[in-house]
Amino acid sequence: MFVHLEEVQLTGYDVTPIGRVESPLVDRAMAPKQGDEGAPDADLVFDAGVADGAKDLRPGTDVLVLTWLDRAARNVLVVHPRGDLTRPETGVFSTRSPDRPNPIGLHRVTIRAVDGLRVRVSNLEALDGTPILDVKPVLDRETER
Amino acid sequence: MFVHLEEVQLTGYDVTPIGRVESPLVDRAMAPKQGDEGAPDADLVFDAGVADGAKDLRPGTDVLVLTWLDRAARNVLVVHPRGDLTRPETGVFSTRSPDRPNPIGLHRVTIRAVDGLRVRVSNLEALDGTPILDVKPVLDRETER
Repeated sequence: MFVHLEEVQLTGYDVTPIGRVESPLVDRAMAPKQGDEGAPDADLVFDAGVADGAKDLRPGTDVLVLTWLDRAARNVLVVHPRGDLTRPETGVFSTRSPDRPNPIGLHRVTIRAVDGLRVRVSNLEALDGTPILDVKPVLDRETER
Repeated sequence: MFVHLEEVQLTGYDVTPIGRVESPLVDRAMAPKQGDEGAPDADLVFDAGVADGAKDLRPGTDVLVLTWLDRAARNVLVVHPRGDLTRPETGVFSTRSPDRPNPIGLHRVTIRAVDGLRVRVSNLEALDGTPILDVKPVLDRETER
């Protein structure tokens, strides 16, 4: 079920992709719901303009990747969690649904290899071509995802 | 030291605040670097238009709050971590610096109380008035932040 936003904010901010995901996952139907549910390895391909920002990414490091889920629906406020119609409708801010007002994906991955602007990571459930907005280090290896 | 982006992407996406932070923190100089370094309790005040999305937020729950760090500098690609000039310059994607191309803040907090569109949370280091972009549940209480 879809619920439409009744109010639209007049002010917004422009996010600019810093790169793209290259992945064998090409549509939502084949993508796992979460990265630890069988997602493949994928590449983060950074734009040359942000090379300095990515220069200290190292294999073996866990990072948080923020993406723009460009195939999500932004007018959704309640969903059945994980698309399971037997579960009650839940506000999207209590779910990880990609469909939400600002469809920012949050993915915890491990860096496998670095080749210039191309960074191979494990267990990324984002689709091929998904814009990357940010990469952040995990603050505490044991407690973050 | 500031490094300017040499390339500007032609395509971007518009993020729309879903609410604002109300906090005693009013400037960066007084804000802790991370939420577990003495940040105060603060309120997430949701816009009425996204009320359905927030309806299932409950006291005692840990959530991830995504904010737009509207007082950050977006033309920064390398920083001295934590502003410590004795530490080597590091690419921002290997730091939690608020200054970065897309200044999206990621905060793990615990919900203390819910009063309609106002949600009291613990340990939020975002400044008063910071736009909120998204709230997501923690997938694994032990392993996420």
